[in-house]
Order: sequence, then structure tokens, then C-alpha cells
Amino acid sequence: MSETLQTAVIGVTGYAGAELARLLLRHPRLHGAPPVFAGRLDSRDAARGGIPLAEIHPELADSKGSGNLLMQPFSWDLLTDLDVKVLFLATPHEQSREWVPEALARGLRVIDLSGAWRLNEAVNREIYAFEDEGSANALKTQSEAVYGMPELHRAEIAGAQLVANPGCYATSIILGIKPLVAAGLVDLDAGIIADAKSGVSGAGKAPTAKTHFMYAADNLSTYGVFSHRHTGELLEQIGIASDAIVFTPHLLPIPRGILSTIYVRFHEPQTRAKVLHTFQSFFTGSPMVRLHEHGLPQILHVARTSYADIGFQLSSDGRRAIIVSCLDNLLKGASSQAVQNLNVMQGWDEQEGLE
Amino acid sequence: MSETLQTAVIGVTGYAGAELARLLLRHPRLHGAPPVFAGRLDSRDAARGGIPLAEIHPELADSKGSGNLLMQPFSWDLLTDLDVKVLFLATPHEQSREWVPEALARGLRVIDLSGAWRLNEAVNREIYAFEDEGSANALKTQSEAVYGMPELHRAEIAGAQLVANPGCYATSIILGIKPLVAAGLVDLDAGIIADAKSGVSGAGKAPTAKTHFMYAADNLSTYGVFSHRHTGELLEQIGIASDAIVFTPHLLPIPRGILSTIYVRFHEPQTRAKVLHTFQSFFTGSPMVRLHEHGLPQILHVARTSYADIGFQLSSDGRRAIIVSCLDNLLKGASSQAVQNLNVMQGWDEQEGLE
Amino acid sequence: MSETLQTAVIGVTGYAGAELARLLLRHPRLHGAPPVFAGRLDSRDAARGGIPLAEIHPELADSKGSGNLLMQPFSWDLLTDLDVKVLFLATPHEQSREWVPEALARGLRVIDLSGAWRLNEAVNREIYAFEDEGSANALKTQSEAVYGMPELHRAEIAGAQLVANPGCYATSIILGIKPLVAAGLVDLDAGIIADAKSGVSGAGKAPTAKTHFMYAADNLSTYGVFSHRHTGELLEQIGIASDAIVFTPHLLPIPRGILSTIYVRFHEPQTRAKVLHTFQSFFTGSPMVRLHEHGLPQILHVARTSYADIGFQLSSDGRRAIIVSCLDNLLKGASSQAVQNLNVMQGWDEQEGLE
Amino acid sequence: MSETLQTAVIGVTGYAGAELARLLLRHPRLHGAPPVFAGRLDSRDAARGGIPLAEIHPELADSKGSGNLLMQPFSWDLLTDLDVKVLFLATPHEQSREWVPEALARGLRVIDLSGAWRLNEAVNREIYAFEDEGSANALKTQSEAVYGMPELHRAEIAGAQLVANPGCYATSIILGIKPLVAAGLVDLDAGIIADAKSGVSGAGKAPTAKTHFMYAADNLSTYGVFSHRHTGELLEQIGIASDAIVFTPHLLPIPRGILSTIYVRFHEPQTRAKVLHTFQSFFTGSPMVRLHEHGLPQILHVARTSYADIGFQLSSDGRRAIIVSCLDNLLKGASSQAVQNLNVMQGWDEQEGLE
Repeated sequence: MSETLQTAVIGVTGYAGAELARLLLRHPRLHGAPPVFAGRLDSRDAARGGIPLAEIHPELADSKGSGNLLMQPFSWDLLTDLDVKVLFLATPHEQSREWVPEALARGLRVIDLSGAWRLNEAVNREIYAFEDEGSANALKTQSEAVYGMPELHRAEIAGAQLVANPGCYATSIILGIKPLVAAGLVDLDAGIIADAKSGVSGAGKAPTAKTHFMYAADNLSTYGVFSHRHTGELLEQIGIASDAIVFTPHLLPIPRGILSTIYVRFHEPQTRAKVLHTFQSFFTGSPMVRLHEHGLPQILHVARTSYADIGFQLSSDGRRAIIVSCLDNLLKGASSQAVQNLNVMQGWDEQEGLE
Repeated sequence: MSETLQTAVIGVTGYAGAELARLLLRHPRLHGAPPVFAGRLDSRDAARGGIPLAEIHPELADSKGSGNLLMQPFSWDLLTDLDVKVLFLATPHEQSREWVPEALARGLRVIDLSGAWRLNEAVNREIYAFEDEGSANALKTQSEAVYGMPELHRAEIAGAQLVANPGCYATSIILGIKPLVAAGLVDLDAGIIADAKSGVSGAGKAPTAKTHFMYAADNLSTYGVFSHRHTGELLEQIGIASDAIVFTPHLLPIPRGILSTIYVRFHEPQTRAKVLHTFQSFFTGSPMVRLHEHGLPQILHVARTSYADIGFQLSSDGRRAIIVSCLDNLLKGASSQAVQNLNVMQGWDEQEGLE
Repeated sequence: MSETLQTAVIGVTGYAGAELARLLLRHPRLHGAPPVFAGRLDSRDAARGGIPLAEIHPELADSKGSGNLLMQPFSWDLLTDLDVKVLFLATPHEQSREWVPEALARGLRVIDLSGAWRLNEAVNREIYAFEDEGSANALKTQSEAVYGMPELHRAEIAGAQLVANPGCYATSIILGIKPLVAAGLVDLDAGIIADAKSGVSGAGKAPTAKTHFMYAADNLSTYGVFSHRHTGELLEQIGIASDAIVFTPHLLPIPRGILSTIYVRFHEPQTRAKVLHTFQSFFTGSPMVRLHEHGLPQILHVARTSYADIGFQLSSDGRRAIIVSCLDNLLKGASSQAVQNLNVMQGWDEQEGLE
Repeated sequence: MSETLQTAVIGVTGYAGAELARLLLRHPRLHGAPPVFAGRLDSRDAARGGIPLAEIHPELADSKGSGNLLMQPFSWDLLTDLDVKVLFLATPHEQSREWVPEALARGLRVIDLSGAWRLNEAVNREIYAFEDEGSANALKTQSEAVYGMPELHRAEIAGAQLVANPGCYATSIILGIKPLVAAGLVDLDAGIIADAKSGVSGAGKAPTAKTHFMYAADNLSTYGVFSHRHTGELLEQIGIASDAIVFTPHLLPIPRGILSTIYVRFHEPQTRAKVLHTFQSFFTGSPMVRLHEHGLPQILHVARTSYADIGFQLSSDGRRAIIVSCLDNLLKGASSQAVQNLNVMQGWDEQEGLE
């Protein structure tokens, strides 16, 4: 078969990287296991060589052998030797800032799951305080990056060398509101409110005070109020000014899933049919979005799936809408969107390997 | 002691009624156990006579004997015989509509936990579709009812014959926003968004598809979008027009607690000090509200307490605020607020029996 | 392809039936969707005709279209018209007692997920109090039934007309202890203790006091002590007398999964190598059992998989063992074991369609 | 009042120490707040001086001011200055081994919640590998220690200088089985099986891979199989040989509570009445044990209470029993049992301050 593409994943010790390895291993267009790496060019990484993935992610033990994948000590030469064409980075953004230019220079196509290259505007990147901000190399790399949301940038992704895979909250909110803003329906002066709630896997695999069961269970808490890093993605991708949206994350006592409740006002009263049609038009040809014609989605529907579910309800006067957008933060919010981008880049069916 | 007041509770088969019985039994100003009733003047009720409360609420088995309280077959004469002065109703609103006028006619003071008498405006009552709506008796009773939130109506509650105990969501949201609206800070044209999340006890004790563990666990869902019954309370008590607020309830996978995230715009930029001072002034003399000078409250702080916790954060330009208001839906959202009202009615210390 | 087998499922309104429909729809050897039925030959069933499965099981909405399967009004003629060869019953045992003889008479092969035909000994069936117990027809049907655990009865299942699919607890315990008993290692006079814990889906989809989130969450409780229906299966399949085992079920606050902790004494001291070898020999050729060479399994490893995971630990003197056996109660404890049986009956690879 | 006893708590940064501070602050016989200490005689401890308890345990913010208690830098002189008479240690056992002799030398009565002084037999202490094992000082201190379970050692506790507060699992199991063993009913040759399950607070406040929400939630796992430290307490306090009991801990996905399922055989068949009477006799005068005359206890009944709940069921032939013993691991399994011991030591009512 012609499509025996070789991919590799750096950063499989985290949840998103591990899910990605699982998906790639089952992908019908990829033959054989992808090489996987814990992800640092240092002795600590080397020490992980030969450790099976299931030792770090016991829940993967079952998944068609993905738990048996052995982590390897990373080297660029190894990628060359293995004829890797597409490299996935599920690494901290600091690391992605450093490695992506090197990978591109070596001719690899890169899908980076971190926030390193998602933001076009310097002002929005400030929150990350990148060490190389403003350098010629960084600016050049950024200029080549395509924001990896196929529903918005399918054509550019197809030809991209570097895809900046979106944030989980950002995916949920952009998919929920972009169609209505793009159609000019939303009164941006009135402002958009995005009240978003995420399961604990979104807080990462490191044990911390916040991921302790005794803190997370039977609780709900806010965090990153007025200051979450995903805000920049919202502004750029929805195409709005910084005072046009407020986004508040909450930590839910569940393992997986995001539900965003989004509040908008319209310039003028709308009908349900009109709003539904606006969404339908926007998502034509987008197989990973499931639009609810009736009712509102919930996390139970989307957890452990690669879909984003979107529904909405209008106020009786048609002047306001509440949009509910749900997805699995580790899948459509991270790894399955990365595979979706791979599919687009290779010209394959967009939901290939995502059942 | 002079205050050997006798109270009684109708409706102890539900969660709020049971919590109320527990609180009354421990109340230092009340001597002896309150008579408790399942709550219907029919044979089914009679059949419950003699059943200990713990048989229906096993979690009460421990609570200083409240589980040992025996439910009695209800009759008005029994209340008279027992010299009951204050009657609590934790009954469905249809039943409260029927019983409250009778109780008042018999000279009892009543604290009704249902939504039967909370709403002054006929338009807001429509959602309840009361059978006696518009009748002279109902209008008279309503005119005597005082909305039972001491932080807003302390003086009127002190002299009231009928206290309409607030809804759980309504308590959370009103306490969070009323101080700022009352001070004239909030731009009502811009609208208030109240995104509220409640634990499963708020959905009642009856087993339903929604309270099934398999539905509620690992999930988050919306309900009552643009149509929840508590909306009327918000409008009347905050004192705003119906298009000035949007309130969306969500079902959390936890037993107890509400967290409301409230979004407002100000007429003009505010400082943190000014907003904090506005809250402090409003809540002076209100011991059951804990204002967070720093940080934001979370459900873990308030579950199983009688407090409402309130915190807020301003946007960097001072033009917006996010207020977070938390409480236990069965306590400050129902039964402890009822006891707080009792304390006010009797001239006792407001937090008596609420530790 | 020659294997375009047509199957059908009666009883898809419950959890196990729905999971079964999901598995059959994805099964690579089955072409097209299986007809599915809510399952009663009465007007109530007819009324369900045309209802999509996702309306009853919203969590199936995502599963490759299984949620879109429409339930049909059941009739035997319809099965004939559709050329159904294998019929799955995920119905209450009373219904299976009635329908299975009819299905066999019509030449169908049947896989029954209920407890109707699992027990060979009349004394063990007493707990079910079957109405037709002792009738010639029932005895004949029972005599044809094969207990559907491929790890024990592979050859008989291959040729069976009627497969009695095992209970979830029974599967977990039998797989954990049968190899050691069969090898003669276990001191049966000392007795086997099987302390088993199951998630809430094992309690069924009907909302009850016990499946209410407020009861199940943050709790652990026992039930069916000394009296659970699965005990009969344990006795017959392990091949022991009724006083040789004690089995205690517990209700866990999780959606899915069973963990059984099984305590045995050996006739004489054993080594880990010997016990491991005994398990390995028994499970040679059994792809759905994963034996842990080191460590003990846990529910996180097996939830949402079709595997049974088994591990054990010996006391320092080698005289006792604790065996831990885990599975997903809806999969290896019900529906995936049914598919495994189908595979054996058809001569297909035993893990076909079970990834 | 004459009993203005001054106590102090070292080790309030953990869950048990914090619960203890909460209980002592509310204790009606203790006036004023107890001084509380994080608990190390080093600079790190000093740095905690002035930190309010609620900063480390936000869930205490509500509890009648216990969250406002300020941790102080520890010094022995401070205890003297404050006239502390009874010192509670909620410290790691290594630290208790070091500090208890010093405290006793200074004339303090000590209640130590760690495992440092619970074990009389050197062979049982081996698992702790105490550095001072065998030293004259350690042996002398151990000889003065009384195992702090009032239901077993009330009289000795009353006069003790050093009370070794029992382990949480040990309390649950000893209370469940000791009465039957003491009465000579249990066939010890047949062995006792104690299958115990605990909530996550039992695993401590430190964030670890095992206390991460993603590991603990939706899971059940075993640990410490054949090797848990509490085994020594079981042997000594029940008074049995090491091969007479097997004890297996499991980690439950709940915050608080232990349920132990205990399996025994009797020398000869027993009646329910006889067994019940045996329990009743043993627990006469023990207010913190609630014996279930019917049915079996569950965690929901005891979480957040100071009780141990015990129930049992006999096999139909009366030869076996299953005893279910439940308690809150942080209360009767730790801090409320410590207060119960204080009450006994002071000659107060045993349930004083434990409602």
C-alpha cells in the first residue's frame, strides 16, 4: 500500500500523548507501531528507554497493545533512521518552542499539541513569556504555523509543515461560537460569556494539591479567571477584540470531558431555524462535529469519543442564545484533533482512525 | 428558660425536610424533639405513622437522634394539642398553596420552603400555574408573605406570619449580585449572566432517570435553560427587568452544593476596594455570609455548612466582574435558611443552632 | 463473503442489551445492523417501534451509529423474514424461560444473557422459582443448554443450540478460582471466600432507591449476603459443594467494573511459579483472559474492555493465596462474553469484534 | 469550671491532625483554642508560624473557627508556658518514636495517633524498622503505652501516661471480631478473613500517583496484600496467632469511610440471638459502637460521625458469620477515637464533644 506513513510521538508520558499513541497504533492507514518517546534530550529521558507505556498509563494496558509500546531514548538521528515523516509533539510549550524549528529544518512535518505556536499576535503570546519571543527564527516559524482546527482551516492544514493543535477549552468554545460570529449575527459589543467546565485530566498527570482526589472529588472550583492562556486563541480564531469575550474555566469532579456554556446576544431577533441553518452551513463537510437539532449535549455523550457536540437554545424573544458545546478534552480537545489534522494533511478521510 | 418554643415540620421525607428536622433537634433554644410528618392528610400518610426518620434517611441515623424521630400521622388538632407555634412546610408547592392559608387561620406562624408564596408578581407566578391563582384568599395570603432572606428583609421577617423561604439557586445568585445592583454599579442593559451548578440532592429524593447514578456520575448537563422556576425570584428580589438576567442551571456529579458564576458589567470602571466595600456594607450584620477578601470560594468550603461564601474578581480594566457564590443547597439553600428565619422571627441570635 | 450472518437482539433497553447491539454493529464478520427489540410481545413493545436506541441510551449516540439503531416491534415472523440465525436475549429470566423454547423450536440458535438456563441442578434453581420448573419442556431445554464460558466449555459451545451466558459476578469468580480447584490445589474444606465488588450498572437501568446517586455515591454497601443468585453458578461450574464457598457482593460508587478478592488455602504449600503455571496452563488458548505475572489487577485496567484480568499473591508460607479477578460487568460479564460465544459457535477467531 | 484542661496538637497539616484540632476546639470541656503545630523542630516548621489552618485545609474554613487556628513554631518551652497537660501527636511514626519519650519526661500525658507505640511484640514491630528498636528507653516507653481502644482497655487508658491510638483499619476489624473471639465462638484454625475497603483520605494528604483523581476515581484497587502494617495490631489485640487472620486493604473512590467485611467460622452452629447477645455484652457501656440488630451497616451511615457501626449475618446452618464493620477513618479510625481516649483519661463522659 502506498500510505505506509511513519509517524512518531514525543511526550507520551502525559495523558494527551498517550491517547495519541493509542490512536495512531489503531489508525488503519498507519502500519506498525509509531516510535514513542518520553521526550527530553537528556539522561533522564534515556533512562526511560525500554519502559512500556502501560507502566506509566496502566489504563492503556488493554488498548490493542498500545500499552506495550516501549518508550525509546530520543535522538534526531533515530527519527531519520526510522524514516519518520510526521512528528507529533505532546510536550510542554517551552520544549516545543525549542524543538519545532529543529524538526522543520530536518524536513519533518510537525503537529504540535502545545500552545507554543498557536498565536499570531505578539500581544496574545505575552502570557507565555517565550524566551525566544521576537527572534527572527521564532517569528519565521510562527508565520508558517497553521492553527489546527480543520473546521476553520482545512485547506491551509492540508499544505502545512507545522500545525499548531488547538487547546481543549479553545476548541470547545470556538466551535460553539465561531459560526454565529462569522455570520455576523452576534452583537460583539454586548460581549460573549463562555463559562467552561473541564474534567481533571485537563489538569495533567502530575500529582498536585489540585489533582488530589480529596480536593477534586465532591467539589467544583474556578481557576484562571480573566487570565487563562487559551483566551488568546479565542480572540484570534473567533476574530474578536479582547473585551468581546470573557472565558472562565472550572474544575469538574470527573475524569474526562468539557462542557462550555456560551452566552450571546444577537444584533436582532433570530429564529431557531435561522441559527440552526447557520451552524449547519458552517459545519458542512465537518464530520467530527455533531450538531444537535433538538436538545442540548452533555458530557456523557462525548466522553471517550472524537466528536464535538453542539446544541443551542434561544430566548423567547430571539435576542439571546445559549450555546452548549461538549467534547472530550483528551480527544477532540487534543489527540484526536491531532489525528484529524494528520488525516487532512495526508488527504485521507478526515475521520479515518477516529471511528 | 422562657423560649421553649414548639415547632413542627411537615414533609420530612424529602432531603430538605429531613435536614430541617436534624437542625431543629439540635437547636439550643428548642427543647425536645419537634413533631415531624411525612405530610399528607390521607391514608398513605397515616401509614407512615411510627416510622423512624432514619428508615427513609439512613444518613441521619447518626445525627444526635434525629434519625430516631418517629413520623406521625398528620392532623391540625395534633398541632394544637402539642402547642405548636411555628410550622415548617417542606412540601411540594401545590400542597403549600393549600395548607398555608389553613395554618395561618389557625394562628400558626409558617415558614414555607416551597415556591408557593415567594412571588409577588402574577406574571412571575405563571410558571407555577397555581390552581387558586387570582383567588381572594390566595392574593391575601401572598400579600402577607415575606421573602425569607434575612440579608435582604431582616426587619420584615421579624414580624412576619408567613415566611416564603427562598429557592436554593435564587439564594446563591441573589446574595452574589444584589449588593452591586443595589449600589447602582451594575449596567443592567448589558445584562447579568448567572451560570449555576448544583449537586444531585437538588434534584430530589425520588429515583428518576436523571438521579440515576449512571446518568449523573461522570457527567455534566444543563436543564431548565431559559425556563427555570427560580428566575422569578431573581427578578423580584434583585429588582430587575426580565431581560436583565439569564440564569442557567447545571447538574453536577456531587451530592451537595451550588456554585454560581455571575458575570456583570459596570456602568464605569471600579476598583477592587470599592466593590469589596460595597459587599461589606451590604452584609454588615449578616453572619451567614462569608465574604472572601481574596480568592474565590468553592463548593468544598461550604458543603455541609450553613454559610454562603462570596468572592469576586475584576477584569484588568475594572469594567467587568465575575462573582462566585457558593452554598450548600440543602442548608443555606433550604433548611438552615429556614432556621435562620426562625431565629430572626424569635429575636434570637441569627446563627443560633447553625454553629 | 460467506459469513454474512444475521443476528438479532431482544432486550436492548437494558445496559447489557445495548452494549451487545453496539458490539454486533461493529463486528467485522456481521454485515449490516442487527435488528433490535425492546422486547415484549405486547402493545407496549409495539409502541417502541421506531425509537432510536440513543433515545434510551444517550451514551450510545457516538458509537458508530449504534445509537441510531431503531427498535422494532417484535414478532417471530419478522425474525424469519430477516433470516435471523442467532438470537440474543438480554431479557429478564422469566421472559427467557418463556421465549427460549419457542426460539429453539423455530430453529434459531440462542445466546441467553439471563439466568434462566444456567443451572443444571434443580436445587440451585430454587432461588429463581421458575413457574415452569420441573415441566418436561423446561427440563429438555435445560438439558440442551451449555454454560457460555469459553474458557471452560469451548468445545460444547461450538456445537450448542442454546448458550446460557454467565452472570457477571460468576464470571469474575469462576475464572479466578476454577484453575486452582481443577488442579486439586485448593483445600475445599477450609472454604473459599469470594468478596466481590461491582459498579452501579450491575444494578440495572431502572431508577431505584439503590441506584439513586445520593445513595450510591460516596458509599459502599453489601447486598445479597449468603443469598445472591449467582451462587448456584459458582457451585456447579467450579464443581464444589455449597458449603465450600462464601460469596458476598458489594455496591461500588463507580459506573462499571467488578473486582473480586478471592481467598483460598492450599492442601500444601505452593510456590508462585507453580500457581502461575497452573493458571497459564488453564488459560492457554483463552485470549480474553489476561494473567498478571506480577502485581494485581484493578478496575481501571479492565473497565470498557472485553478482558478478564487475573492476578494473585501467596502468603509467605505458601499456604494461602489471594486471587484478584477484574472485569467489566457489562462486557466480559455480559455482552462481550456473549459475542465471544457467538465467535466460538461460528468457528471464528474468539476475539473477533472484541478488539 | 474546674476542667479547663489545656491540650495541644502536633501534626495538624495532615487530615487526622486537622480533624483533631476541629474536635478539640468544639469540645465542651476544653476552653479556648488548643495551640496547634505543623510539627518539626526545624526551620521549615518555624516558617509555618502564623499560617492559619484553613490555608492548608480549606474545608475547615467553616468549622466554628478551627480554620482560623494559627499554626505556631513548635518548642517544648512553649508547651510549658501554655500549661499544656495533654499532648496529641498526629505525626509520622518516626517522629513519634523520637518525641514521645521527651514529652513523657516533661510530665505530659500523650495520645499518639501514629503506629509508633501500638505494638507490644518485637516481631510485630519489625515491619516499622524503628531505629531505636531494642533500646532501653524505647522498651521502657513501650511498656508504659496503652492501646487506645476504650472498648477493650477502658480502665488502663484512664490511668495511662501514653496512649497509642489505634490504626483505622485495625479499629474497624478489631471491633468487628474481638467480641466473638473473646467469647470463644470462632474457629481460629479455620482462619478469619478481613476484606477491608477505605476511602482516599486514608492514603494521606500528600499528592501521589495513587491519590491522583485520575487514578482513584472510577477505580478499586488492592494494596498491602499480606503485608499491611496494621496486621500486628490485629494479632495482638484480637489475641490470635499470625496465621489466624488474613487482612486485605482496598482503595475506594470516596473521600472518607472504611467498610470491613469479616468472614468467620464457628466451632459449632450459632443462633442469631446468641451472636447478637455476645456483641451486646461486649459493647455494654461503649457509646461509640452502634450495633445493628437487623441489617448491615454501610459507609453512608458512618461517614462524618464518630461511631463504629457493626452488623452481622449468619449462614443458614449457623456455622459461619459475615460481620460488617464501618467507621469514618479520620474520626473513629483516628481523631475522634483520640478524643474518646482523652475523655476516658479525664474521667469525662466518653462521648463528650463527639455529639
